[in-house]
Amino acid sequence: MPATLGLDLGGTKIAAGVLAGRRLLNFLERPTPKSGAEAVIQALAELAREAMAGREVAAVGVGTPGPVDFARGVVRFAPNIPGMENVPLKAELERLLGLPVAVENDANAAALAEHHLGAAKGARHSLFLTVSTGIGGGVVIGGRVLHGAFGQGGEVGHLVVDPQGPYCGCGNRGCLEAVASGRALSRDAAYVFGRPVEVPELVASKDPRAQALVAASAEWVGIALASLQRVLDPEVIVLGGGVALGGGRRYLAAVRRAYRARMKNFKEARIAAARLGRRAGVVGAALAALEVAGVADGPGQALGKDHPA
Amino acid sequence: MPATLGLDLGGTKIAAGVLAGRRLLNFLERPTPKSGAEAVIQALAELAREAMAGREVAAVGVGTPGPVDFARGVVRFAPNIPGMENVPLKAELERLLGLPVAVENDANAAALAEHHLGAAKGARHSLFLTVSTGIGGGVVIGGRVLHGAFGQGGEVGHLVVDPQGPYCGCGNRGCLEAVASGRALSRDAAYVFGRPVEVPELVASKDPRAQALVAASAEWVGIALASLQRVLDPEVIVLGGGVALGGGRRYLAAVRRAYRARMKNFKEARIAAARLGRRAGVVGAALAALEVAGVADGPGQALGKDHPA
Repeated sequence: MPATLGLDLGGTKIAAGVLAGRRLLNFLERPTPKSGAEAVIQALAELAREAMAGREVAAVGVGTPGPVDFARGVVRFAPNIPGMENVPLKAELERLLGLPVAVENDANAAALAEHHLGAAKGARHSLFLTVSTGIGGGVVIGGRVLHGAFGQGGEVGHLVVDPQGPYCGCGNRGCLEAVASGRALSRDAAYVFGRPVEVPELVASKDPRAQALVAASAEWVGIALASLQRVLDPEVIVLGGGVALGGGRRYLAAVRRAYRARMKNFKEARIAAARLGRRAGVVGAALAALEVAGVADGPGQALGKDHPA
Repeated sequence: MPATLGLDLGGTKIAAGVLAGRRLLNFLERPTPKSGAEAVIQALAELAREAMAGREVAAVGVGTPGPVDFARGVVRFAPNIPGMENVPLKAELERLLGLPVAVENDANAAALAEHHLGAAKGARHSLFLTVSTGIGGGVVIGGRVLHGAFGQGGEVGHLVVDPQGPYCGCGNRGCLEAVASGRALSRDAAYVFGRPVEVPELVASKDPRAQALVAASAEWVGIALASLQRVLDPEVIVLGGGVALGGGRRYLAAVRRAYRARMKNFKEARIAAARLGRRAGVVGAALAALEVAGVADGPGQALGKDHPA
C-alpha cells in the first residue's frame, strides 16, 4: 500500500499527517488562516510539505466542512472559513504539490477512517454520525463512501425525524439537526434557563432540566438510527462529536435504548463510540487519497481487506 | 450477455421469463400453489423449464416476498404463501434445474429491473418504492441492490416518519407503512366512513374525505423521500404499487409537492412512475441471476454500462 497524505481543513485548525499502512506519521496542526481562500490553500500546501518531510507519498486527500463537488474537487462552501466558496481545491493543490488530490467532506472522511481503522474496523457496511454543533455523517458501503448522485449522500443531520418540528438552518423543518444538535440544545437551554448555556456545561450538568434536554437529543438520534437501520442496514454505527461523547456513557446508553425500543423484529447493529478522535479527519482524508492513488478498489484493497459488494 | 431466467413468486401468481439482452421472452404466469413449500418449489421448477423451452440459460433468479437470507439463498418467511418458512430455495432449485440460482426479495428485484431497464434507466443510483397493501422498496447503488449487513437494506416501508404515530405490523410505531400504505388507508377509511372501504374505491373516489386520506398518504411518502434523498441521494426515485399508480397522476403530483416543499437548498431527484408493471419482478430476478452467472460486476457490466462507484 502506497503512503498517502491526509489534510483536514477545519474552522479553527488545519491538520496533516502521512498514512503509511495503518500508521499515521507526522501529525501536525496549525491555526486556520482567516484571510481568504488563497491563504488557506497556501497554508495547506505548506503543512503538507512539512508533514511529508521528504517521504514518498502517492496522493493527497483533503477533508473539508460543507458541501463538495466531488467530480471536480471543488469546495462549494466551507462554513466558518472566510472566502471558501467555489474553491477549486483539487486543482490548486495538485498544481502546488504535484500529486493527485482527492477532496472529501470532513464527516465522510471521518466515516471512512472509523470504518477502516477505527470503531467499525472489520465491518462491510457502516454508518458514522457526529453530534456536535451540527450533525453530520457518512455512509460507507463495501468500504467506500456513498457520495450519491448530487454529493448529498450521508447528510443524516437532515433526515426529517419530526415533520412538524422546529425549523432548521437548511431551510426545512424537523431535521435531526434541528432537534438533536448542539445548536438545538443551546436554543432549547436558552429558553428553559432564560440565559445562554454552553453545550459542554449542559451536557455535564446534574440539573434535571439539562439532563432532560440532553436525553431528548439522544432519543432523537436513536430514532433516526432505527430508521436508517432499515434502509442502509449497517453492521456498525459509529457515534462521534462533542455532544455524543461529551456526557460519558450516558448519552450513548440513551441512544441505544431509544434505538432498541424501535427495532422490534429487526436485526440490530452494534453502536460504538468513535475511536480516532481529532485524527479521524486526517486519517480519513489519507484513505480517500487512495482512490486517486491508482489503487483500483480504494482503501479496502489497499488495506488488504476483502470487500465484496 | 448470457441469457438468464427470472422467476417471481407472489401471493397469488408465480411468473417466469427469459431475459436475453434487454428483451424478456416467454413470459408465463400460473396460480401460486397453496399446499406447502414443496408444491411451490415444484411449480417454480416446472414453470422455469417451460419458459426456458430448450433455450440456453446461464443462471436463474427468484424474487420472493418477505425477508431472505441472501448469503444462503433461504426464504425466511413469505407472507400469504402457506408453508414458506425457512425454505432453502436456492439449494432446492439448483438441484432441480442444474443451474446456479440467486434468491432476491421481490421489491429489490423490481428496484433492479426499474434501475436497469425501466424508469431509472441510465441512473447510477436509484431508489424504488412501492405503495401497495404494504410499502416495500429497494436501493440500487452503482447498479447493484444494497442488501446491507443483515438483509434489511431498502426496507423503506419501516422508516420512522412519525415517532408518535400509529402502530405498525412490524411491532414498532410511526413507520411509513403504518401511515401511508393501502392497509393504513383501509384502517383510516373504515374509521372515517364507519364501514370497510376497498383501497381502489378509495383511491378513485371523489368524496373529499377519501381524497384527504389519499393525499395524506402521498404527503407522508413525499416526506420520507425528502429524508431518503439526504442519505442515499438517488438520481431517480421510482414509485410503483396500486396506491401510488392507482389514482392516476394525482398521487404522484402530491408526492412531488410534499417532497419539493422539504427539499429547500438540496438538489432534487427525478420522481418517476414505475414502467415495467407486473413484469418487473421477473425482469429483476433475471438481472439478479447475472450476479451468480459468472458476470463479475453483475447487471451493470452485463448490460454494457459503466457504473463507477
